[in-house]
Amino acid sequence: MITFYNASHLRHQGRLEMFRGELLPCFERADRVETVLAELRARRLGPIEAPEPFDDAPLARVHTQRYLDFLRTAWQEWIALDPANAGKDALPSFWPIRGFRSDRLPDNFAARLGLFSFDAGTPLTAGSWAAARGGACCALSAVRRVLAGERAAFALTRPPGHHAGVDFFGGYCFLNNAAIAAQALRDGGAARVAVLDIDYHHGNGTQAIFYERPDVFFASIHGDPRTEYPFYLGHADERGAGAGLGCNLNLPLPRGTAYPEWQQALAQALQAINGFCADALVLSLGMDTFEHDPISGFRLKRDDYYRIGETLAAQGLPIVITFEGGYAVDELGINTANLLQGFEQAA
Amino acid sequence: MITFYNASHLRHQGRLEMFRGELLPCFERADRVETVLAELRARRLGPIEAPEPFDDAPLARVHTQRYLDFLRTAWQEWIALDPANAGKDALPSFWPIRGFRSDRLPDNFAARLGLFSFDAGTPLTAGSWAAARGGACCALSAVRRVLAGERAAFALTRPPGHHAGVDFFGGYCFLNNAAIAAQALRDGGAARVAVLDIDYHHGNGTQAIFYERPDVFFASIHGDPRTEYPFYLGHADERGAGAGLGCNLNLPLPRGTAYPEWQQALAQALQAINGFCADALVLSLGMDTFEHDPISGFRLKRDDYYRIGETLAAQGLPIVITFEGGYAVDELGINTANLLQGFEQAA
Repeated sequence: MITFYNASHLRHQGRLEMFRGELLPCFERADRVETVLAELRARRLGPIEAPEPFDDAPLARVHTQRYLDFLRTAWQEWIALDPANAGKDALPSFWPIRGFRSDRLPDNFAARLGLFSFDAGTPLTAGSWAAARGGACCALSAVRRVLAGERAAFALTRPPGHHAGVDFFGGYCFLNNAAIAAQALRDGGAARVAVLDIDYHHGNGTQAIFYERPDVFFASIHGDPRTEYPFYLGHADERGAGAGLGCNLNLPLPRGTAYPEWQQALAQALQAINGFCADALVLSLGMDTFEHDPISGFRLKRDDYYRIGETLAAQGLPIVITFEGGYAVDELGINTANLLQGFEQAA
Repeated sequence: MITFYNASHLRHQGRLEMFRGELLPCFERADRVETVLAELRARRLGPIEAPEPFDDAPLARVHTQRYLDFLRTAWQEWIALDPANAGKDALPSFWPIRGFRSDRLPDNFAARLGLFSFDAGTPLTAGSWAAARGGACCALSAVRRVLAGERAAFALTRPPGHHAGVDFFGGYCFLNNAAIAAQALRDGGAARVAVLDIDYHHGNGTQAIFYERPDVFFASIHGDPRTEYPFYLGHADERGAGAGLGCNLNLPLPRGTAYPEWQQALAQALQAINGFCADALVLSLGMDTFEHDPISGFRLKRDDYYRIGETLAAQGLPIVITFEGGYAVDELGINTANLLQGFEQAA
């Protein structure tokens, strides 16, 4: 399988995130992607290529222009406030929750930082825009290759994407690579696209982006939002709305779920995707379902990822894979490569 | 003028707040109220009394029961998560902005902490509930005295209240003392009540609580939300809605505004309150309009506060005063006492 790797991800290295009332070192680290890359190379799992260049048009198919404009200039605005800001990341402090307005764009940078985000755990750094844009170009390059006839392509994206909404960042995500890929598949001729999100954390951004759309099916297997991040979305009763009613499937599972129960949810999700008659699949590949993930609660083991790869290959759909979460860095490369290898051997 | 002082405010002493990407010592300090108390005593401006006890019923007239239940048990839940939490304040990290759900209450404490708040600058401490409740009892005691015939009463409340909404804390505020007082005046027989908010920061909570109500007029003079906290509310085009249309008046002013322009806005607000034919007035008294306030931008001077007191007294309305912001602690007592003394001498 071809992998698109974007070296500019190294420009995004957040220092601190708010976690349980304290500023702690970020869990979403650059070596996450480097360890996956090294393992893919070691196993010779396929060519590694740099992404092709794309302009902002395919990003603007998913995100609002004012959000993209904000992200593009955010760091320059941050350091313009105070040169000392260059030594620390930008983290928001206030948010327009229920009853507040988000229609009027404040002049104040910190207020716009809050307006376009939903948590205090996603530092915006000097290189965040370049890294996120590079990741999106990986996803778009993967789409282009799949539209040209490849069975599968892997976008080794970082920062991840599935928590990013139409106009907000959060959960370590800035641009929603999976949503950008799904939309690009649609725009490239696929009539019906399914997104399958197997990150431990619900892909709230992807769900929200397509929630009223009948042409993109979203299915997600994740930790129950009653106890797991992002908490405020991801329940089983969220089935889509308007023309998209019935095109959203959430399969929340309790903490402690191991592979036997997890793979039943996978079978259910794939059955629904089959019923939808998708022409192409986007996989939001989070690896934080692993039993030793430091911030998650499922109990999948190394070898389970081979089985997942095999199961996905058996679907027979062209597939674009975007990389999402996964924080057990020591085994992240092995687990990710296991899944991709399982797919390759069964495809 | 009688002052109600609540010693339990000392139990709320936040350690750190998120401010421009860092955790900094809280601006909202306990000595704010102590310095006001000392100055009122020194000038013998009237009796200082402890508040009467009240049950939660008058709080529940303004706040939702599920929010009050959360506040009451929040600290116990926080330290139950981890005994080490007793050594640090609870600060939220994620919020249900647009597209997220707030109808379902997560089991996860950190998620409920975010659900019921809108910023990362309002630490919830071991004593926050007791202090906020004590402050609300001050406001209710002041109302009872005014309903019994006193011309004016001052609730020296801390933490402040005007940023707290129906079901959220933020901006150092937990219970909206001004809204609780206005509702108690209504429930005590005042047919029409006006709230005048002269804190530097827009009283978003009070506005939102009464936004669709024709019986409570809200007027606010504050820093323009395009550049000033709380950013996402407080524009001049917010005039109320439904039955409350026309009963909300925002007078945002630019940073740098001094008394000559500020008092024109005050005259405009009072004219509108006169037109509303209010039976009683609640004053949300923020003192951060002072020229040396460390986090605000108006340029009012010490002696200006006498004039404000005189102007308010000239209205002839019974008045309940709740204490809001003001962070130039060294002169906070003097400025506050100046306003109250100006009122007393003109009343």
